[in-house]
Amino acid sequence: MVPRVIFGQGSFDQLGEILLPKRRNSDAPFIFLVDDFFENREFAQRIPLMFNDELIFVSAEEEPKTEQVDILVSRIKERYEEQPSGIVGIGGGTLLDLAKAVAILLNNNGLAQEYQGWDLVSKPSLYHVGIPTISGTGAEVSRTTVLLGPEKKLGINSDYTTYDQVVLDPDLTKTVPKEQWFYTGMDCFIHCIESLNGTYLNAFSESYGEKALELCKDVFLEDIPEDESRDKLMMASWHGGMSIAYSQVGIAHAMSYGLSYLLGIKHGIGNCLVFQHLDEFYPKGVELFQKMLEKHKIDLPKEVCAHLTQNDFDILVNVALGMEALWENALGKEWKKIMTPERLQAIYQKI
Amino acid sequence: MVPRVIFGQGSFDQLGEILLPKRRNSDAPFIFLVDDFFENREFAQRIPLMFNDELIFVSAEEEPKTEQVDILVSRIKERYEEQPSGIVGIGGGTLLDLAKAVAILLNNNGLAQEYQGWDLVSKPSLYHVGIPTISGTGAEVSRTTVLLGPEKKLGINSDYTTYDQVVLDPDLTKTVPKEQWFYTGMDCFIHCIESLNGTYLNAFSESYGEKALELCKDVFLEDIPEDESRDKLMMASWHGGMSIAYSQVGIAHAMSYGLSYLLGIKHGIGNCLVFQHLDEFYPKGVELFQKMLEKHKIDLPKEVCAHLTQNDFDILVNVALGMEALWENALGKEWKKIMTPERLQAIYQKI
Repeated sequence: MVPRVIFGQGSFDQLGEILLPKRRNSDAPFIFLVDDFFENREFAQRIPLMFNDELIFVSAEEEPKTEQVDILVSRIKERYEEQPSGIVGIGGGTLLDLAKAVAILLNNNGLAQEYQGWDLVSKPSLYHVGIPTISGTGAEVSRTTVLLGPEKKLGINSDYTTYDQVVLDPDLTKTVPKEQWFYTGMDCFIHCIESLNGTYLNAFSESYGEKALELCKDVFLEDIPEDESRDKLMMASWHGGMSIAYSQVGIAHAMSYGLSYLLGIKHGIGNCLVFQHLDEFYPKGVELFQKMLEKHKIDLPKEVCAHLTQNDFDILVNVALGMEALWENALGKEWKKIMTPERLQAIYQKI
Repeated sequence: MVPRVIFGQGSFDQLGEILLPKRRNSDAPFIFLVDDFFENREFAQRIPLMFNDELIFVSAEEEPKTEQVDILVSRIKERYEEQPSGIVGIGGGTLLDLAKAVAILLNNNGLAQEYQGWDLVSKPSLYHVGIPTISGTGAEVSRTTVLLGPEKKLGINSDYTTYDQVVLDPDLTKTVPKEQWFYTGMDCFIHCIESLNGTYLNAFSESYGEKALELCKDVFLEDIPEDESRDKLMMASWHGGMSIAYSQVGIAHAMSYGLSYLLGIKHGIGNCLVFQHLDEFYPKGVELFQKMLEKHKIDLPKEVCAHLTQNDFDILVNVALGMEALWENALGKEWKKIMTPERLQAIYQKI
């Protein structure tokens, strides 16, 4: 779990003060990895740079990659004689995951892909701070950083992945475009449905998942003031992330991983594309999801898998079925009997 | 926040494995501070002692005191040449608060009373693990350790107070006597009512407080299976503690502090004694509380303040009104105009 968190509209302005005692000396910079959406925007001026701190704008157009982590780490190592004082990730799930991975790799030798898996990180990561500017992924609270590697899309799941400090300032999500707001929020909603309907569920995850689900319903189905809605979605993301940290996601996430891997489809929209066709597994969840789509007039892309070859479907199916823990959580120990490659391909063909 | 937590029936058996990598060497013991309720009980055999580890049974009959902390710290320092590997607190709020304070004072010079207040601790505490055996206080998750000092009852509130690791095993609460179960659970319920009705409330605390309150209602007003009830009350305590960590408690806690200070009344029952008379401030909360009292056939002690002198009442009132943040949270910035010493004494006289 994240040991330090501050919450509140405007709390971002406390960042300078938070980082100050963590500065080892004036040659040990803070590296800020920031979504390039904010380049040339007023917000970028509020980032509290000091000494030789560096601000690196990163595109979040694509899912974060192991190679991208390795390049960032090399660049930082080459540029500074001293180890940085820390890494600050500012953005959505992509930026937050990248910053977590960079902080790990700055203190652990080798390539990012070597650490994809469970508890493969042996040394504590560099001090790192996460600041979400879009709500839903739960990346700000989770103990994983999901990366697209040369062979797989898989998280670096470890105790050292988790942020040392998180700043939750709902005002930072004001500028999120509507569709992205929806898709990323649905990432949280789908987390909750998967976690609450999973066989791994326990009272810890359940209590977080239920609260996150309730907040998602308030945000996406009720008419509440905008600032309250931003507050609530930020807390939904937080609790949703906590819920899956101690249980697991399920079918939508497993299948969405395939779409990301083969087609580069971003996680949030990928989850939505899959989830709409999972009514036989999550009937109530899909019903709510349809209501949310209607209320916010969201048209999901169609025929995404219409022109794929059999070889493409084989890749999708293999990547998805490779996420064994997710399937076991969703369907129980006998999941292989329930979800055959044929059945899975048939669902992909609807997308 | 607590950086590491495990949850689940039977999870206590993982404690040995959790402590192993934290053992600096075989001369640096773990000191287990355990509620003496468990002395000569089977549970004590399950505590994973190794090398020169020490198990100290401590009575939880009285509220924890600064002097008690100082004595424990001196004893440990005299007995071992090496600094211990860590402190493990096992018990209810008293034991959990004691263990937190001992871990702080083993790494910070001076007396416990010097650290009562906000952020007075300058050095990280010794590694410390908290294991609740009764649910409700939230001491397992909070950043304070409330101690009765020579001059005041006040918390050592700091980032270093929080446990490094918590083990939430609902099975450990099986042996709690019914009245204690009720009074300690009500500590959580009253936290929630105070936090949710406070002026300091924000969306972060609100989401935790609402979940904790919902779980309390399930536990104390519904008829659910015993194991589910233990799970839920343990999570209620956790979320309730998180809620007040980022907001504040209110009138019942301020007044209960007075009762503890003057009469040595334990925190849980003290809260109940006060709360029953707070219907003008928390009408819905007190109504629910009365239903819970009835359902569980709890008779609160009567005439507790019947034979006090005016001097005694002055002490009660002064201690309670000294908790300024609690009153401001409950009644707003103008609280002094609302809660006069006379009005407060009149409430104490009902108890």
